[in-house]
Amino acid sequence: MHKKHPTSINFITDNLISEFSLIDRFFKRQTTNPSVAQGIGDDCALLSMPNGYELAITTDTMVENVHFFAGCAPYQLGHKLLAVNLSDLASMGAKPLAVTLALTLSNVDKNWLQAFADGFFALADRYSADLIGGDTTSGPLTLTVTALGLVPTGQALRRSTAKPGDIICVTGHLGDAGLGLKINQGYDCKQPDAALNRFNQPEPQVVFGQALIGIANACIDISDGLVGDLGHILEQSRVGACLDWEALPLSTEVLAYIENTGDWAMPLTAGDDYELCFTVSPGKVDAVTFPYTKIGFIEAELGLRLNKSSNIQPLGVKSFEHFS
Amino acid sequence: MHKKHPTSINFITDNLISEFSLIDRFFKRQTTNPSVAQGIGDDCALLSMPNGYELAITTDTMVENVHFFAGCAPYQLGHKLLAVNLSDLASMGAKPLAVTLALTLSNVDKNWLQAFADGFFALADRYSADLIGGDTTSGPLTLTVTALGLVPTGQALRRSTAKPGDIICVTGHLGDAGLGLKINQGYDCKQPDAALNRFNQPEPQVVFGQALIGIANACIDISDGLVGDLGHILEQSRVGACLDWEALPLSTEVLAYIENTGDWAMPLTAGDDYELCFTVSPGKVDAVTFPYTKIGFIEAELGLRLNKSSNIQPLGVKSFEHFS
Repeated sequence: MHKKHPTSINFITDNLISEFSLIDRFFKRQTTNPSVAQGIGDDCALLSMPNGYELAITTDTMVENVHFFAGCAPYQLGHKLLAVNLSDLASMGAKPLAVTLALTLSNVDKNWLQAFADGFFALADRYSADLIGGDTTSGPLTLTVTALGLVPTGQALRRSTAKPGDIICVTGHLGDAGLGLKINQGYDCKQPDAALNRFNQPEPQVVFGQALIGIANACIDISDGLVGDLGHILEQSRVGACLDWEALPLSTEVLAYIENTGDWAMPLTAGDDYELCFTVSPGKVDAVTFPYTKIGFIEAELGLRLNKSSNIQPLGVKSFEHFS
Repeated sequence: MHKKHPTSINFITDNLISEFSLIDRFFKRQTTNPSVAQGIGDDCALLSMPNGYELAITTDTMVENVHFFAGCAPYQLGHKLLAVNLSDLASMGAKPLAVTLALTLSNVDKNWLQAFADGFFALADRYSADLIGGDTTSGPLTLTVTALGLVPTGQALRRSTAKPGDIICVTGHLGDAGLGLKINQGYDCKQPDAALNRFNQPEPQVVFGQALIGIANACIDISDGLVGDLGHILEQSRVGACLDWEALPLSTEVLAYIENTGDWAMPLTAGDDYELCFTVSPGKVDAVTFPYTKIGFIEAELGLRLNKSSNIQPLGVKSFEHFS
């Protein structure tokens, strides 16, 4: 983590506090993992890997006005930025180890940075993920995290290994984050807090992901909506599936939203849920020790189908307008 | 690498081609390292680590109008983005292994992307660095790479281990990239090509970095200017240094620039050179097998001093205006 090119292109004037003091003040902390041989403070961080593990690596970017609203609460933003990356680790069954943080900031606001760091580290601490490096630059607010996790060698949960006959399961509820977005956009919800919280501060299913190692055949996190993400499993596993609409785990508020609007497809397509969708053979499903909901089956026949009111029809990402 | 939240906040309309086809078309390629167990295509990449090595990790961001000029050549931008990250690996003595790429694009221009990818991969291929994942998002042009490399356990070159009596050495020439920037800003250079090339398309000293393992006591890359970067070694090693201005390796064009402008401090402070500055004990300096220049000595007395025309004076980053 070092200051880039301050003498090279001076379109943007120096910030009130330098990158070095910014990192020292808000982001440099004692690391906790014995695998971290060097954290922030040199040209690179250094990790030593325990035997018997592979390193899982994921990168996600969030851009102001694209992935989050300008002016959103920095605590929640710090949490969510890390959460979306830990969710990717969870979907492979990896245990979080370390993260890097690339912060592009349009200005240095100490209160904003403190709240952002508080939200980031509150989640990082819960999963013992050390911040080991990164970069801070001037520019339009853009945030990138690379998260590193450990997974037993050869046992990572994949998208490509679902099998016909597998039961399709999801953790938690579907569509709550989508409802949170609708509320942000003006939908009048009687009990908005839970949905808003799911949209603003989603929980990555880190523990559940690791618990699926050796049990699930395939897994993905629902960041882009169930249909799109399950679609990746189907495509990469070269299988199909049938979902049971009536089996979807929906909150009271999402059910009320559907009743009010007729928009029954929302929980199938809305993003940001960060639940896990996994497939498991019927013989192993009882080994799943955490709460989940069975929502359908993997089938040999390619394509995704939906059973809604005992009416089975093909379901494509773009087919909703033709289906309802 | 997956599409983020297309259904969540639609301030920016969909691009002409989706993220998936964009990645497939421009960025998804066969990986070459046996350590890469999973490249692009799942929620995470997977690396298996060979025994006896640590993983070196670095992240650098480049922002349009901050780190590079709007409209700069995309081939050179792709090269430079990777180069600045490989330079960080080089400064620790690490061998490049894999990289992730987070691309925030304001629009999708296929010709731009092809040239960017060509520049990126031409350099990646020279050092066998596999692109294993990342993210593509809509927003102001911002580019973040996380680079991963291998270094023998416990032998990484550090900033914190310089010793009094060490000879301070640099690879290549100093100030050429700084001159390239001056040329971009209007300075009239008779032979501008070499300096412009150093600014636009710097070469990371990947091979030299690895060759310093077991020889150098400390090492850093000169990305922010010699004085600033050597300053990190001095601070973290709790030592001082004296540099010999007459010993600095300067190109004919930089010497002409100094003669024309009187700006003798430029090669000490200008960024973007991406050469290595390393310290080595006198007994080991003959073991350095590549071209380098001795420019001074590490001293027990704290602070940085400059010997210019046999006149030794203290040198601080902010002291140039008082010194010349």
